[in-house]
Amino acid sequence: MLQRKQEVLLNTTRKLLRKNAHIRLKHIVEHVHPADVAVLFRFLPDEHQDIIFSLLSENKRRAEVMSHLEDVIINRLLSEYDINDVAEIIKEMDDDDAADMLANLDEDQSAAVLKLIGREEREEIEDLLRYDEDTAGGLMTTDLISLPAEMTADEALKEIKRQGEEPEMVFYLYLVDDDGRLIGVVSLREVVQSPGDTILEDIMTRNIHKVRTDTDQEEVASIIARYDLLAAPVVDEENVLMGIVTVDDIIDVIREEATEDILKLVGAHEELLEDYSLRRNVMSRLPWLLATWMGGILVMKLMGGYEDTLKKVLPLAAFIPVVIGMAGNLGTQSATIVVRGIALGKVDVNRLWDTVGKETMTGLVLGTFYGTALGVVAYFQYDEIPLLSVVVGLALCCSMLIAAMVGTLVPMVLHRMNVDPAVATGPFVTTSIDLVGVFVYFQISILLL
Amino acid sequence: MLQRKQEVLLNTTRKLLRKNAHIRLKHIVEHVHPADVAVLFRFLPDEHQDIIFSLLSENKRRAEVMSHLEDVIINRLLSEYDINDVAEIIKEMDDDDAADMLANLDEDQSAAVLKLIGREEREEIEDLLRYDEDTAGGLMTTDLISLPAEMTADEALKEIKRQGEEPEMVFYLYLVDDDGRLIGVVSLREVVQSPGDTILEDIMTRNIHKVRTDTDQEEVASIIARYDLLAAPVVDEENVLMGIVTVDDIIDVIREEATEDILKLVGAHEELLEDYSLRRNVMSRLPWLLATWMGGILVMKLMGGYEDTLKKVLPLAAFIPVVIGMAGNLGTQSATIVVRGIALGKVDVNRLWDTVGKETMTGLVLGTFYGTALGVVAYFQYDEIPLLSVVVGLALCCSMLIAAMVGTLVPMVLHRMNVDPAVATGPFVTTSIDLVGVFVYFQISILLL
Repeated sequence: MLQRKQEVLLNTTRKLLRKNAHIRLKHIVEHVHPADVAVLFRFLPDEHQDIIFSLLSENKRRAEVMSHLEDVIINRLLSEYDINDVAEIIKEMDDDDAADMLANLDEDQSAAVLKLIGREEREEIEDLLRYDEDTAGGLMTTDLISLPAEMTADEALKEIKRQGEEPEMVFYLYLVDDDGRLIGVVSLREVVQSPGDTILEDIMTRNIHKVRTDTDQEEVASIIARYDLLAAPVVDEENVLMGIVTVDDIIDVIREEATEDILKLVGAHEELLEDYSLRRNVMSRLPWLLATWMGGILVMKLMGGYEDTLKKVLPLAAFIPVVIGMAGNLGTQSATIVVRGIALGKVDVNRLWDTVGKETMTGLVLGTFYGTALGVVAYFQYDEIPLLSVVVGLALCCSMLIAAMVGTLVPMVLHRMNVDPAVATGPFVTTSIDLVGVFVYFQISILLL
Repeated sequence: MLQRKQEVLLNTTRKLLRKNAHIRLKHIVEHVHPADVAVLFRFLPDEHQDIIFSLLSENKRRAEVMSHLEDVIINRLLSEYDINDVAEIIKEMDDDDAADMLANLDEDQSAAVLKLIGREEREEIEDLLRYDEDTAGGLMTTDLISLPAEMTADEALKEIKRQGEEPEMVFYLYLVDDDGRLIGVVSLREVVQSPGDTILEDIMTRNIHKVRTDTDQEEVASIIARYDLLAAPVVDEENVLMGIVTVDDIIDVIREEATEDILKLVGAHEELLEDYSLRRNVMSRLPWLLATWMGGILVMKLMGGYEDTLKKVLPLAAFIPVVIGMAGNLGTQSATIVVRGIALGKVDVNRLWDTVGKETMTGLVLGTFYGTALGVVAYFQYDEIPLLSVVVGLALCCSMLIAAMVGTLVPMVLHRMNVDPAVATGPFVTTSIDLVGVFVYFQISILLL
């Protein structure tokens, strides 16, 4: 949610933009936190974004603001600048942000920018660009303090003084052997608290929560969150220290993954929150709706086969929406609980039938409750067909029971088949519940009426 | 998601429990990380949890494991222990964890435990218990380093050495005046890097991202995430430093809030992930389904009024599920995108019509596409009633358009009325879309057939 402070900032900015009061605006955007400037970009039209960006006088500050911006906005801004200016901005960034930035540019542009950057920095960025952006390698920074394990506490403190402001995360010191292999970690606190002549090796922790460059970002997040770390070291297959992933990057990952999970369940994509183009919006939502549409056609065909039953007892039609609506909603509840439970590691996917059994029981109880209630309503509404109340009650109960089972089973089976349960669960569950619901409903009708 | 390592640990534990190999099991649970022991509890039945808990030999270790456990499990474990043992365990906890633990016990128990704890610690915990658990006060720890601003860097380092291992977060030092009011912050790095006689006041940052004890946890999370902080200081209304909230607690908040948002949208509660009792499960899902059920009754009544139309053109019934299904899904997509967008501060709630307009356009395009496709199918399926294809096509298009509008408008209006959009959006949107869909469908039928 936007904080009050940011809403005030946004309103003030809009007012100053309307009045073309650029000098006052410049004063503001130069002095608030770069993350707050980035919030402005999210809510202002392109031409106003350009004005604000041009008001930032130093490349250092532009780089800071950019590291808080979304990819779509960055690409648009950079496309309006000369390649030399882009290089000047990127030079001012932390290496991990610079690599992210370049990964988003098209290849020609990215190569052109790299040529304009100094050799040492270029090599660091190129190293980072080799990694998939959803892995520890793609998230990590190479700005860290690594020291030989035989150093003393005093020497370590001297080294930190020498390094100045560069490393992002100075609170953990990583100890390596002569080949750069990670052997331990000490915190700055431990160094400060130890007598000056203590050998770091003697106070270091050897049991380190480290990750590999190719570890998936979700797993990195889960390790940092579980063990309450401020940063996790990243090593290659030879255990050579390559970088660190810091907790602030992990917070972004956790938010993104949660948002992705939510939106996937309804067949939408995360970018829709960042880029509201009509074409993109339509195209990204089309496939999921296609599954629903095709399911609907099947339901239509299925119902065509029951036309005779329907002709005999016309009121049957009036109860179809409530039966499939209730079943669909219950199934979606079960599916959502299971998908989120899997994501948080709170559902044991190896105990399939435990979870399915419990959810099915819930479906049975809720189905009996609402089925009975619906039967009573039907009895009074259509008292000329007393059996109708039994049919609708029983149909609601059965379809809710099945819905709970399907809603639980589908994501768990998908997960076991290594398919992301969030992406395929939604349309599959709602469509199959509609079909099964209509089928059960008419079969019971034929049997009883 | 569970990591491979934890799955192995879980399987090994199950095997050892089956064999009653308690000595080997003890060796394992005494040596893995407390967070990993906590994972075992989540997946094992009560009697096995008890065995493992009893195998932990020291109260210190029991306290560590408990600080990673869910409330339901903690309460069950504590209810089986004598009050003196409970007090011994709680004594070993960090003060914020101890306060959380006591807040969950019933009042008599909590008072009895507090009596058994030493005065100083008791007072600290009692202070923390005063705050609502969803606020900065409820999250914070009082274990921090606060120093007078006139101290020198050397004196500060000496003070840190003296404090030993106690404070959780030693990397920020908070500077206060004589009345304990927060005036600045320095990082341990800055202290280490400065000459020994530097006065802290001269190097401190005055522009601090601080929060109040009553600041909502979601806002605390958003501040720590936005400004990439490791901890935020918490002050009272007089600006007196009361504690700090650390980033690891914030990660838990972010996860919880995201999970809450997802589950609220389908009318389920977060506790369902932790406690799978049938009664709780049924009761927490009943209300949301009640809204759907009542909506279904209304739809049924509405359809009763169109019985004559339906009698004349029986195939109309076969298209009802696809029309309300498509509209319902599209509306849920819109609602989910908006709810999540509001939560992440990516939707500008003051520009209501911008967002509604864009979503409605999307609904129109998607509705036209799928409406036309449905019309074509209807034309070939029921070629004896050519106008039916126009009716179903038009009805699908209109109801999808309306669904997108309703799905966007409802959460935004709720948010403006200070109602949590996630909790009320789901049932309201699906129910009203069902009603409107059926109404539009039959009105178009009457008009054209």
